[in-house]
Amino acid sequence: MLKADERIDQLYSQTIQIIQSPSVFSFSLDAVLLADFAVIKAHSKTVDLCAGNGAVSLFLSGKTTGPIAAIELQPRLADMAQRSVALNQLTAQISVYQMDLKDTFTKIAKDSVDVVTCNPPYFPPLATSKKNPNPYLAIARHEIATSLEEILKITSGLLKMNGKAFFVYRPDRFNEFVTKAAAWRLETKRVRFIHPKADCEANMVLIELIKDGRPGGQRFLPPITVYDQNNHYLPEVRRLLYGSD
Amino acid sequence: MLKADERIDQLYSQTIQIIQSPSVFSFSLDAVLLADFAVIKAHSKTVDLCAGNGAVSLFLSGKTTGPIAAIELQPRLADMAQRSVALNQLTAQISVYQMDLKDTFTKIAKDSVDVVTCNPPYFPPLATSKKNPNPYLAIARHEIATSLEEILKITSGLLKMNGKAFFVYRPDRFNEFVTKAAAWRLETKRVRFIHPKADCEANMVLIELIKDGRPGGQRFLPPITVYDQNNHYLPEVRRLLYGSD
Repeated sequence: MLKADERIDQLYSQTIQIIQSPSVFSFSLDAVLLADFAVIKAHSKTVDLCAGNGAVSLFLSGKTTGPIAAIELQPRLADMAQRSVALNQLTAQISVYQMDLKDTFTKIAKDSVDVVTCNPPYFPPLATSKKNPNPYLAIARHEIATSLEEILKITSGLLKMNGKAFFVYRPDRFNEFVTKAAAWRLETKRVRFIHPKADCEANMVLIELIKDGRPGGQRFLPPITVYDQNNHYLPEVRRLLYGSD
Repeated sequence: MLKADERIDQLYSQTIQIIQSPSVFSFSLDAVLLADFAVIKAHSKTVDLCAGNGAVSLFLSGKTTGPIAAIELQPRLADMAQRSVALNQLTAQISVYQMDLKDTFTKIAKDSVDVVTCNPPYFPPLATSKKNPNPYLAIARHEIATSLEEILKITSGLLKMNGKAFFVYRPDRFNEFVTKAAAWRLETKRVRFIHPKADCEANMVLIELIKDGRPGGQRFLPPITVYDQNNHYLPEVRRLLYGSD
């Protein structure tokens, strides 16, 4: 079942196994933190955009019995996600769609979704002069095949009124994110910054949006600090990764 | 020199003495944190808007030898600020102007200032039905005599190109603040959230703006946590207040 260069990884705090490939795509801490941050009810209908190898969808399956749709453009990654879903016997709950975001509404009705999750490409498009040594990673990380604008448009289109979206993003584009989200009727409600160490600036941010929410009333949660001064995971992160302090 | 109900307070980490009145206005931790957050060069020209009893201006005097103008609408507070400036023998450095923000440019030239600091009224105007038991505090805390919009307009008008403004504000209006600031050519560059305790949401936020700065590139500094679980000040705050751990 595994292709060359693939391996199966497991988070010790979960029973989920995930097919990974360092040369193509591996989930990282951002997927774990996003899945933890997302609030999903027992019967919610969820769509995970920019699903990669399906890590977020797989992690979310422990939080809800409702259906989860994972949408991923890249055939190789969507195939990994599909095989991980099968490996975890979750084909009844998780549907993997290999398609362009633009085509989302051919498979999922507008205004029908309770929760959207997304770990989008963080970085602006690569300069055309720049070589892409790894096109899989380039597409996953840079706004090559899609853009923040398009992702927010699709997110807004999918969600029911008062439906929620959960994103992980980069702090240096936080203002742009919040402004563009608001233009698509998605109000920022809950924010949590991730700091690599206690004395470091944030390098990730978790953002909860509500469709047609009232402006104002943002809440900034206690931040997550990942490592202590000796580069060991701090308890909250260790618990997410390994299931114990 | 002191009026009834006034007292002189001193921060142990500073040599500054400040005339306070609990029934009129007392500086609090937000003023201390704002003065610490502000980056001011040796010869910067600084304006402190919504100056209250002058606490921020007085604290800033230890960071620069440049001139500081404190602008305060309320005569009673401006008078306290003026007497504190005299008490600390800082009349050569700090000028107190009792006037409406609207009149700022009658005293200070447009595009002439390096640094603006401001601890503005945080709360929306009081409902007209609501009684104001204390008009001094109501004006200092609520957008009665001025508005965020007006303060940002004056700030932008005062600053030279690439001049900096430092604000302390409320997290639940963070998005509104950032959006309105950008509309007045003030780009958010550096942000620091203040959490009362490690497991609490932020209740204050420090924001650095640059006039005509390029959009994007926001930096979110390590947060400040004020108290430990036993309600004692944590070292960073203790150092600011008392000058030692």
